[in-house]
Amino acid sequence: MEESFPMTGGDGPNSYAKNSKRQKGAADKAKSVLVEAIIEKLEVEDTPSIASTFRIADLGCSTGPNTFFSVNTIIEAVTHKYKTKGHTSLPDFQVHFNDHVSNDFNMLFNSLPPGRQYFVSGVPGSFHSRLFPKASLHFVYSAYALQWLSRVPQELSDINSPAYNRGRIFYSNAPNEVGKAYTAQYVMDMERFLAARAKEIVPGGLMALLIPGRPEGTLPAESSIGPFFQPLESCLVDMENEGIINKAKIDLFNLPMYSPSPEELRQLIQKNGSFSIARLESNTSAGSKQLCGAGECRSGLENIIAGHFGSNIVDELFERYAKKIAECPPLDTGDTSGIGLCIILKRNL
Amino acid sequence: MEESFPMTGGDGPNSYAKNSKRQKGAADKAKSVLVEAIIEKLEVEDTPSIASTFRIADLGCSTGPNTFFSVNTIIEAVTHKYKTKGHTSLPDFQVHFNDHVSNDFNMLFNSLPPGRQYFVSGVPGSFHSRLFPKASLHFVYSAYALQWLSRVPQELSDINSPAYNRGRIFYSNAPNEVGKAYTAQYVMDMERFLAARAKEIVPGGLMALLIPGRPEGTLPAESSIGPFFQPLESCLVDMENEGIINKAKIDLFNLPMYSPSPEELRQLIQKNGSFSIARLESNTSAGSKQLCGAGECRSGLENIIAGHFGSNIVDELFERYAKKIAECPPLDTGDTSGIGLCIILKRNL
Repeated sequence: MEESFPMTGGDGPNSYAKNSKRQKGAADKAKSVLVEAIIEKLEVEDTPSIASTFRIADLGCSTGPNTFFSVNTIIEAVTHKYKTKGHTSLPDFQVHFNDHVSNDFNMLFNSLPPGRQYFVSGVPGSFHSRLFPKASLHFVYSAYALQWLSRVPQELSDINSPAYNRGRIFYSNAPNEVGKAYTAQYVMDMERFLAARAKEIVPGGLMALLIPGRPEGTLPAESSIGPFFQPLESCLVDMENEGIINKAKIDLFNLPMYSPSPEELRQLIQKNGSFSIARLESNTSAGSKQLCGAGECRSGLENIIAGHFGSNIVDELFERYAKKIAECPPLDTGDTSGIGLCIILKRNL
Repeated sequence: MEESFPMTGGDGPNSYAKNSKRQKGAADKAKSVLVEAIIEKLEVEDTPSIASTFRIADLGCSTGPNTFFSVNTIIEAVTHKYKTKGHTSLPDFQVHFNDHVSNDFNMLFNSLPPGRQYFVSGVPGSFHSRLFPKASLHFVYSAYALQWLSRVPQELSDINSPAYNRGRIFYSNAPNEVGKAYTAQYVMDMERFLAARAKEIVPGGLMALLIPGRPEGTLPAESSIGPFFQPLESCLVDMENEGIINKAKIDLFNLPMYSPSPEELRQLIQKNGSFSIARLESNTSAGSKQLCGAGECRSGLENIIAGHFGSNIVDELFERYAKKIAECPPLDTGDTSGIGLCIILKRNL
C-alpha cells in the first residue's frame, strides 16, 4: 500500500512553510539551470499543442512558498523563449501543484501569490502513480521530493530477514542488505514515476528534477543524506535507553528516503526509454553541510514520527534534537556527502 | 472586493458534507436532464480537441459528496455517447473541482471516491472570474451555487440610500429599491460569469446550470428563496429585541443571494452572445417547500453569520432556529415559490 508522509501544514512555528529555507537556497542555486534548460531545450515551434495552454506541474510542491518562486522562474523563462522566437502572443499558463492527499492544500491555496499570471490547479495524489491526462504537460518540475520512497521496504520490518534494520532508522552504517532493500524499492518507485511521466508529458516537453544524491561510484550505505539523520537516530536511541520509547519501536522505524547516484538514475532513465537526458550533473556545493535545525527537521518528519511513535513524544524528541545539534560541529564528510543532482529530461518526439 | 462565503468544512455534525441532502435530492432529479443533454447535444465528432482529454468542471462544488455523484453521471453519459458513436477508445477524463479559496479542499480531497475513473484537480477561486485556460473545458456543471452573489450590493449598507435594508436580511418583503440593488449586482455577476465561461469552454462544449429561481413574470421581492430565510431573520430580530444583538448589526447584514426568473437569465445569455440555449426550463417540483433544518441552514450560513455578528452568537442562533422551525408549518407559498431552473447552454462553434 502506498503511504504518504506530508510536511507539517499550516503556517505555525513548526510548519514546512516556515521551515524550508534550505530547500529555498538549493532551489535558488538551481534557478540558472532551469532557465538554461528552457532557453536551450524547449521547442516552442515544434510543439503545436503548446500554442494555447502551457501546462506546468510541480510534483511534491508541499505548502509553499518555494513552489511559487520556482513556478515564476519557469514561466519567466518560457515567456522569454516565446519572445525570442518572435511570438507576439503568449499561451495561457496553467500550473498544477501536486502533493499527497494529506498535504495541506488549504494552506497552499491561501498563500497563492496575488497578481500571479497563471491558472491554478491543485492535484492530490502520489507522483509514483498517474496524476494527469496523457500528453497534457509541457514542463514538469520536482525539487527535493523524489528522495521520498512510496513506502518503507517490507524486509526492513521482517525480523527473519537479513535486511531487518535493528537499532537504526536509515540505511547509512547499516549492513549491505539494508541498502539493497532500499535500492530495490527506489528502482520500483522510479520506474513507476518515469512510466507515469512518459505518458503525461507531451513529445518535446521537459522535466527538471532536483534530487539529493550520492557521488558516482559510492554504495547506498554511503548515502549523502545519511549524516543528516544521525542526530535524530541518536536522540531516539537515548529515549529508548531511558525507557521513554519501546525498543522494538526503533527496530521497526525506518525513514522512507533514498539518495541515488548519477549512474543509478541514468540507468533507470535509459531503461524507461521515453526520455533523452539533456543534463545530469551533480553539484557538490548544492548540498549543505549544515545539520538541519530542529524546526526544519520537525516540519519534514513530525508526521511520520508521530504516526509511528505517537504524538506524545514529538515535543520532547525535538527539544533533545535541538540540544544535540547545538553541540555538533558542521558535518565533515568530505566528498561522500551532500551532493545535489540536477537532471533535465526531454520527452522523445 | 470579491467576498467568499464558504460552506462549513470538515465532516462534523454542522458540516456541509453532512447537511446537503436537499441539494442531493435536487441533483438526483436533474440527473436525467444531464444525461439527456449529453446524449442529444454533445458533439463527439465535431470537437476534435475532445479526442485526448475530456475536461469537466464543477463550479461551486463545496466539499462533497454531491459533486462526486454528479461527476459520475456526466462521465457515464459521455462514455455512453462515445460508444454509441462507435468510438472504441475513450478520452482521459479530468475533473476540475472548483470553489472559493476558503472552501475546505483538504476535506474534499480526502473524500474522493476510490476507484474513480478520472484525474482530479482542485481549482480555488471565484467563478465570477477566469479560472481556466482558454478553450480548455468540454463540460461545465454548477448546481445550487449561482444563487451566491460575489458581494452584497453596496447601497444596502448606505443609510442614505433608498435601498438601505433596515431590519431585514434579504430582499423579500423589502422596498423595490432593495430588490433592484440585488438585481443590478446579479446582472454584473452573471455577465462576468458568462464572459469567463465563454472563453474557457471549447466550441461545441456544454454548460449545465441548476439554479434556484423565481417564476416567469415575478418581481425579485417575490423571490422563491425568500421564505426560506424568514425564520432566520425572525430569530435574529428576537435576539436583537432581547439585546443580544446590536440593532445596527441587522440593518447592515444582508444575505448575498439572488434567485432570477427565466427571462432574466435568457436576456443575460443572449446579451453575452457566445452560447445557444439548448434548454431553459423551470421545474416547480424541484423546489422543496420544506424549510431548511437547523443543520442544513447552519452548514451554509454559519461562516457568513459568524463573520458579521461574531462566532459567539452562532450556537444560540441555531438553537433558536431549530425551535422556531419546529413550530412552523411547511411553506405554503403557492406558485410564487420553490422553482428550480435548469439551463443547458452550448458554446457556439
